[in-house]
Amino acid sequence: MYKISKEYLCQSIQKSFMSKLVIVGTVAFDAIETPFGKTDKILGGAATYIGLAASQFHVDGAIVSVVGGDFPQEYLNMLRTKGMNLSGLEIVEDGKTFFWSGKYRNDMNTRDTLITDLNVLADFNPRVPEEYQDAEVVMLGNLHPAVQLSVIDQMKNPKLVVLDSMNFWMENTLDELLEVIAKVDVVAINDEEARQLAGEFSLVKAAQKIMAMGPKYVVIKKGEHGALLFGNDDVFYAPAMPLREVFDPTGAGDTFAGGFTGYLAKTGNFSFENMKNAVITGSALASFCVEKFGPERLLSLSRAEVRQRLLQFKSLTQFEIKLT
Amino acid sequence: MYKISKEYLCQSIQKSFMSKLVIVGTVAFDAIETPFGKTDKILGGAATYIGLAASQFHVDGAIVSVVGGDFPQEYLNMLRTKGMNLSGLEIVEDGKTFFWSGKYRNDMNTRDTLITDLNVLADFNPRVPEEYQDAEVVMLGNLHPAVQLSVIDQMKNPKLVVLDSMNFWMENTLDELLEVIAKVDVVAINDEEARQLAGEFSLVKAAQKIMAMGPKYVVIKKGEHGALLFGNDDVFYAPAMPLREVFDPTGAGDTFAGGFTGYLAKTGNFSFENMKNAVITGSALASFCVEKFGPERLLSLSRAEVRQRLLQFKSLTQFEIKLT
Repeated sequence: MYKISKEYLCQSIQKSFMSKLVIVGTVAFDAIETPFGKTDKILGGAATYIGLAASQFHVDGAIVSVVGGDFPQEYLNMLRTKGMNLSGLEIVEDGKTFFWSGKYRNDMNTRDTLITDLNVLADFNPRVPEEYQDAEVVMLGNLHPAVQLSVIDQMKNPKLVVLDSMNFWMENTLDELLEVIAKVDVVAINDEEARQLAGEFSLVKAAQKIMAMGPKYVVIKKGEHGALLFGNDDVFYAPAMPLREVFDPTGAGDTFAGGFTGYLAKTGNFSFENMKNAVITGSALASFCVEKFGPERLLSLSRAEVRQRLLQFKSLTQFEIKLT
Repeated sequence: MYKISKEYLCQSIQKSFMSKLVIVGTVAFDAIETPFGKTDKILGGAATYIGLAASQFHVDGAIVSVVGGDFPQEYLNMLRTKGMNLSGLEIVEDGKTFFWSGKYRNDMNTRDTLITDLNVLADFNPRVPEEYQDAEVVMLGNLHPAVQLSVIDQMKNPKLVVLDSMNFWMENTLDELLEVIAKVDVVAINDEEARQLAGEFSLVKAAQKIMAMGPKYVVIKKGEHGALLFGNDDVFYAPAMPLREVFDPTGAGDTFAGGFTGYLAKTGNFSFENMKNAVITGSALASFCVEKFGPERLLSLSRAEVRQRLLQFKSLTQFEIKLT
């Protein structure tokens, strides 16, 4: 008879009551320069930010990604302590981890990419661990559409698939991207990408055109101007929290996606009304992300702080007008 | 004994129960070109838009401005039927009305000024009619700070003075502008102007610096991205209504100011909580203004339509998140 530790048993029982969330995206090194300073290679990548944000909701999350033999064990341990299952994180021992380097201009809204070393990401062949193929929620971070498609094909019957993408894939792999878009429930991209994908300047028209491609909902991220949620004829506007200082915007969009999908996986309610809450939650988490370099602020974030920030979003947006 | 008509008596009695609103600003001709078409000289000017928006609230408004002998009687009649008192609107018979001509670029967010003919505005000496010198609310539209100061000096004891301005006055008459700012209760300007005035990129810091100059509240207008309201440590975010089409943005900022001050004059409550409603009301009226050329849409606007739009703002922004 096997001996099973009490801790392992408790964790297993807890997990059996949680929604599962599959997160696909980069796990990377970033080197960032902003007007406030610069970093050496630090932990980065879309899946990292998504996972750290989603971990606030104690969902049973799995990261599907790839890193090289140079990726530190301490980062892996940290992601595991945040509740992320890493059995779908391939480690190519003789390869190097994806590396991105960028510099923000003074307005913090535009940045120049200095280095993009794909490294092990060039041959990434995603594998969803068998025990996560029945996950309810899938977050497809910005990657080659063929990778995103492969993940969808490995899932058994997901209830909600959310897609991020970027202009690079629209310009170079549009057919494959449209194939993915037709299979997802939510497209969550930024305003310029939505305009490019739809060929419409009006975000209302752009969202309607994207919904006509298949998805039931469209989330348009507008950075410091917040995010718009569209579904059928419904629309909802979540502001960004006005901040005294934006220290480093890196990862804010992915943190938004992680808060959004983490909240939805936790609540299991995919109605438009609950999507509103998910968008607000994503905005709240993103507002923390930009307070420090890289994912640093997310690592120290407490539930009480998130709760407090959600209260601030309430007072930021709620009003009681008498209609006469 | 004088004969007084029943209509005149009724109107006088009604007006005696209303808050008075003094509106200072241009009454002008505009020629506008957008990607959707162009107009000849049509009715324009800040005070026109402010007055038309405020007229939705049946306040007792007076326009303080100047026009030339070329200004059509039908425009004057129209403003009067909207409830605007024009005894402070000077008509310089041998002068020409202020004329502005501009062309919007394809993104509708930037415009090039083609012509600015000050005409009678060059020697404008504002006169607040005696019966409006006790008005509760004053809206100082974008004009030379010396003109704005003269109006403040003519008022007896206004409860709320709201100021609009622009970069031109910051660059050319800063000392006078700062003198006006020190005497007003609310500064309502757009984001780039707020940054320039405060010398701060962060809108939170900019608002705090402007409040330190005297005003109790600062409203920062962000065009298609909505408006921010600041007061002490409070902040409120009113989105702009996402629209399928923006036909002509001319006057949207002034319409916002008219909805804002009209609502405040009607309710007489200048708390931060009620300012929130005023900002939402301003945003709602501005969302109509951009639907047609110039002030056309405001002229046909019904109370039922405004009420309906305010309900849309509610569903656009309100959410019910459970905080656990």
